[in-house]
Amino acid sequence: MTKFRVGILGATGVVGQRFIQLLEDHPQFEVAALAASDRSQGKEYADACTWRLPGEMPHRVKAIRVQSPEPPLDCDFVFSSLPGDIAAEAEQNFARGGYPVISNSSSHRMAADVPLLIPEVNPDHVSMINVQQDIRGYDRGFIVTNPNCSAIVIVMALAPLQAQFGVTSCVATTMQALSGAGYPGVASLDATDNVVPFISGEEEKIEAETLKLLGRYHGGAIEAAEMKISAQCNRVNVTDGHMASMRVQFAQSVSIDQIREALSSFTAVPQELNLHSAPERPVIVRDEADRPQPRLDRDAGKGMSITVGKIRADGVLDYRFVALGHNTVRGAAGAAILNAELLVAKGYLVH
Amino acid sequence: MTKFRVGILGATGVVGQRFIQLLEDHPQFEVAALAASDRSQGKEYADACTWRLPGEMPHRVKAIRVQSPEPPLDCDFVFSSLPGDIAAEAEQNFARGGYPVISNSSSHRMAADVPLLIPEVNPDHVSMINVQQDIRGYDRGFIVTNPNCSAIVIVMALAPLQAQFGVTSCVATTMQALSGAGYPGVASLDATDNVVPFISGEEEKIEAETLKLLGRYHGGAIEAAEMKISAQCNRVNVTDGHMASMRVQFAQSVSIDQIREALSSFTAVPQELNLHSAPERPVIVRDEADRPQPRLDRDAGKGMSITVGKIRADGVLDYRFVALGHNTVRGAAGAAILNAELLVAKGYLVH
Amino acid sequence: MTKFRVGILGATGVVGQRFIQLLEDHPQFEVAALAASDRSQGKEYADACTWRLPGEMPHRVKAIRVQSPEPPLDCDFVFSSLPGDIAAEAEQNFARGGYPVISNSSSHRMAADVPLLIPEVNPDHVSMINVQQDIRGYDRGFIVTNPNCSAIVIVMALAPLQAQFGVTSCVATTMQALSGAGYPGVASLDATDNVVPFISGEEEKIEAETLKLLGRYHGGAIEAAEMKISAQCNRVNVTDGHMASMRVQFAQSVSIDQIREALSSFTAVPQELNLHSAPERPVIVRDEADRPQPRLDRDAGKGMSITVGKIRADGVLDYRFVALGHNTVRGAAGAAILNAELLVAKGYLVH
Amino acid sequence: MTKFRVGILGATGVVGQRFIQLLEDHPQFEVAALAASDRSQGKEYADACTWRLPGEMPHRVKAIRVQSPEPPLDCDFVFSSLPGDIAAEAEQNFARGGYPVISNSSSHRMAADVPLLIPEVNPDHVSMINVQQDIRGYDRGFIVTNPNCSAIVIVMALAPLQAQFGVTSCVATTMQALSGAGYPGVASLDATDNVVPFISGEEEKIEAETLKLLGRYHGGAIEAAEMKISAQCNRVNVTDGHMASMRVQFAQSVSIDQIREALSSFTAVPQELNLHSAPERPVIVRDEADRPQPRLDRDAGKGMSITVGKIRADGVLDYRFVALGHNTVRGAAGAAILNAELLVAKGYLVH
Repeated sequence: MTKFRVGILGATGVVGQRFIQLLEDHPQFEVAALAASDRSQGKEYADACTWRLPGEMPHRVKAIRVQSPEPPLDCDFVFSSLPGDIAAEAEQNFARGGYPVISNSSSHRMAADVPLLIPEVNPDHVSMINVQQDIRGYDRGFIVTNPNCSAIVIVMALAPLQAQFGVTSCVATTMQALSGAGYPGVASLDATDNVVPFISGEEEKIEAETLKLLGRYHGGAIEAAEMKISAQCNRVNVTDGHMASMRVQFAQSVSIDQIREALSSFTAVPQELNLHSAPERPVIVRDEADRPQPRLDRDAGKGMSITVGKIRADGVLDYRFVALGHNTVRGAAGAAILNAELLVAKGYLVH
Repeated sequence: MTKFRVGILGATGVVGQRFIQLLEDHPQFEVAALAASDRSQGKEYADACTWRLPGEMPHRVKAIRVQSPEPPLDCDFVFSSLPGDIAAEAEQNFARGGYPVISNSSSHRMAADVPLLIPEVNPDHVSMINVQQDIRGYDRGFIVTNPNCSAIVIVMALAPLQAQFGVTSCVATTMQALSGAGYPGVASLDATDNVVPFISGEEEKIEAETLKLLGRYHGGAIEAAEMKISAQCNRVNVTDGHMASMRVQFAQSVSIDQIREALSSFTAVPQELNLHSAPERPVIVRDEADRPQPRLDRDAGKGMSITVGKIRADGVLDYRFVALGHNTVRGAAGAAILNAELLVAKGYLVH
Repeated sequence: MTKFRVGILGATGVVGQRFIQLLEDHPQFEVAALAASDRSQGKEYADACTWRLPGEMPHRVKAIRVQSPEPPLDCDFVFSSLPGDIAAEAEQNFARGGYPVISNSSSHRMAADVPLLIPEVNPDHVSMINVQQDIRGYDRGFIVTNPNCSAIVIVMALAPLQAQFGVTSCVATTMQALSGAGYPGVASLDATDNVVPFISGEEEKIEAETLKLLGRYHGGAIEAAEMKISAQCNRVNVTDGHMASMRVQFAQSVSIDQIREALSSFTAVPQELNLHSAPERPVIVRDEADRPQPRLDRDAGKGMSITVGKIRADGVLDYRFVALGHNTVRGAAGAAILNAELLVAKGYLVH
Repeated sequence: MTKFRVGILGATGVVGQRFIQLLEDHPQFEVAALAASDRSQGKEYADACTWRLPGEMPHRVKAIRVQSPEPPLDCDFVFSSLPGDIAAEAEQNFARGGYPVISNSSSHRMAADVPLLIPEVNPDHVSMINVQQDIRGYDRGFIVTNPNCSAIVIVMALAPLQAQFGVTSCVATTMQALSGAGYPGVASLDATDNVVPFISGEEEKIEAETLKLLGRYHGGAIEAAEMKISAQCNRVNVTDGHMASMRVQFAQSVSIDQIREALSSFTAVPQELNLHSAPERPVIVRDEADRPQPRLDRDAGKGMSITVGKIRADGVLDYRFVALGHNTVRGAAGAAILNAELLVAKGYLVH
């Protein structure tokens, strides 16, 4: 089988590098083109990019010349991790130019005709692609997005609970990793011996995206879930791994065992389709009193599993627990790649 | 005026050292005796104790010989920061032996006849001392406690709001400093690049103590406040300074401005009495989007002020905000010292 | 081929866990027995051990019952990471009892008849095994050791230079990771926002072991290398990866290019024999001005390569550079496993 | 006595803020003018500057309007912590315009006619001011500099040793704090769980400045000290406090006791003159095996003392020890202020 030739927009950033790393030995996709909005344009990637992930820059991308993030680009579709201000227009240009755009950027996530997709949670939302192409007059191109790096952790934990029991309220307090801010991102003087209770726009994103993700595709539109939601966000001194202290109110009476079982037995379309990047267990439940922890659990399922622990009765809402996921894998590049794998399986990406 | 001669139980621990540091130039109290439960007994303090606070061990305690934490001790009253398992009996022994015990330990906090005291919040609870002495047959001695290091931060922020508007529910998610666990306490491999969502017994302590602290002294007993409370606790990589992301539901309609005003204008008995360790402003409200932060705000009011920020409307409860305080000053040694100052002013401590 | 059945002494510690992790899919060795000196004896490993490495405890060791670190043990040979005070006698007991002991402990490293082995550096020192068996009257058993976790980084960088140019003096200042102290090891209050310029016994170990490692096996004895050596050790806030700022004086005139070439082209017996754990390149030279760094380079060569960078002329000695290696892989468990692989290849380990 | 009215160039940076903090209650100097090279010009300082030090912005500077760093400025002299690229010309403009410039910037430090001053070490170098004014045709103005934040720590420890015994070689390996890079400075992803063996230009600065600082003023010129010097620099995850592992070769035979005594008894001109910012003991020797440590010792002498520990015989040079100082107090703003106090005492600063 011939691999899809993919372009990466925002290739020199932290998430762009994760795309390249995760795609290094991918069976369906190979990196064919790299683009970035910074001064790196025109240089070979090895010269343009300071590689900031552990391990070496994959050999095969070193000689690829970095281009401007504008079509045409010599590839079948693009992954985008462009900065928000540039992504808005650039991604539309690619979609209009006939390229499927699988985006990690926030610009189009909340547009009514753009699927905000987690393959385990709302795979049917892909149908919005057809609506989008009709509305916008796109031919072959379209835009699909994955959620904010904290929203995805929260929603992966909520989805099985909402499906089985109904969730009426959710209170989430996040402790988010430094890599979520990119590079150079958070200043070390703000991170060391400190917590910063502020991440620009994050609380609003989590609240809005959660409702869309858990919403229902119906009659060519996505109806937001009816749920009260509250997010309070903190930046902590952790390299990778977003954690959320959560409380949940249910629509019906539920036991801790039922919650535990709903989460740990959860599998969905990606597992049925055996998608390459799909973890065997989307949600891992740990029973130790002191887990999950970012350093120990972020790489579970190669960074694609969410880990939940500490399910307890709560004095204000019904139950509380802690959820954790890898913010640049399941929360960014890995999320987009899994989206692309779903789109291949569903016939939305063709050679 | 002659200074009170005080003994410190648990003098070699992190909180014991804070007591010594904070009492170095105290106008009313001078350290006269030191006791500890560890191998240090019989040695001079300079030899018995590895000083772990910035700055030098105060000169005047160096030659004091460390004793067993049992009466008699050559002093007017004792501060106690003994470990919980030892504190229970040792503190009773001192009280029975005629010593007022101003304790930071958790052993007796929830006993019905023991005041759990924050001078700004429930100074009238000191009356429980008389009840306690009657019930227990104590003569001159008694036990007074200060709350858990996180509870005090949470309650200092809640107290003015409860007083003015009534609080019906409170959800608090803590991010607690390493010094809260003492020394050696948290292993560095658990702290670095990590968050641990577990502190033994902490959530239960916060929930129970909050209701007692905000309770009403009436007819020789303390009636717990009627409030739903939920605490979820995390250990983060911060040396000093406990932070809490809080949501609050009110008994009546309130505006952000009213909340802000209630907190920033809050003063109480310690300020009226001009107690030595009382901060000018018990609660400081900061308006920057990214405050409070442990490294920048923990020393506000010489570590005795609580800093609150980010007051916002909330999607599940009414409002949310962030509160922060110094866990070994206002949350431990400083709390006990302020309690002692109140007891002097109220006539419970006499030469 | 039948795998060797190995026992692990000190199985519940940080290095013991690394042994188990690194041996999970080893082609020659399989874990058959586990022993520890602590309270875990008699329990199944899953119950006895709190797994502290990222990822899950390998399934096949979970039901192995932890034994006392005394022979007999149902295995062909043992890896030991026992604490120093226990290792001395326990390892002798095993050797006397007929078990080859491949030890990471420091107890026997400097004994005249015990090989202190780095397969890339002094593989001929294995001949000391025969001398040792003669002297001590061991039958089948023997003791082989790997060096201190910092010494191995320093010596891996020195060895190719000494071989080609002669090294007369070496000054090494280490910045060592927290995992080198085991668990709980360094207190977080000592690690956060801090450097501790003290690791008990470390400077002496590095200095003594370096001279033995670079020494010459001759006439049944190891002659220590003639070299001036100075080690100054610091504990820094890094989870894994020991780094050393080094200066070197040579016996002859050398250029930076020659040093670079000697290091980057270095291969030795493990690479020739294609030993399973041998990295393709024992020493990787990086040319970026800011490398090596622990977080980015400790996992090079699956943790078995040393990374060297910043080779510059020096104002006091001839040249300076920075060397880095993974302290619990190449510096501990991986070192011992590579030693065992060499011993298999050389016929010292037989079924 | 009327206070000198001082201007601060680079007032919004980390060192500029330290100047303002340290000058808050200074008996001789009061902040009268603020200038910065960034977008803050024209705003009131309270609006122009995000205060990044613990504690609040001093009240009296809040309403001062930030000006361009060009003369005229309404003050008697200026402290400068301008960035290197801007400082070169701006400081000359001020000096030419009649303003004494007491600079922390690196631009002019190595100019032959500019004193590089540590009042305890080379107070006689102030005579270069007269030479400088002659050469450059400055009237009332001049430029005086303090050294690099690591050089000052190293030289404070070397100076008493050189004076008494003669030092022929010094090898220093630094572990430097994050605040040394200013704000935002080091990216948190480079600082957390990491060490970076690179600080641009730092090794060269330390080596060159050390020789000038320890040099001899003679016949209108400064003769660099004759000493071999080697500096290797690392950035570690510490907020404040630069530490150096040092080895020293002496011109004569010396004992550890002699070194200890030379350092701990060291006092000099600032102590004799009782300058306001001069610490009682410029060098504090600690005998604990694990000191100095940044978190515990950086504030010694209100941040103006250097702490030395771990004096030991060395295998390559004669002795080794560890030195530590506060990089933004003694290593920057405090250094410049002490220089100013010396200049007042010597009559170089007049109203």
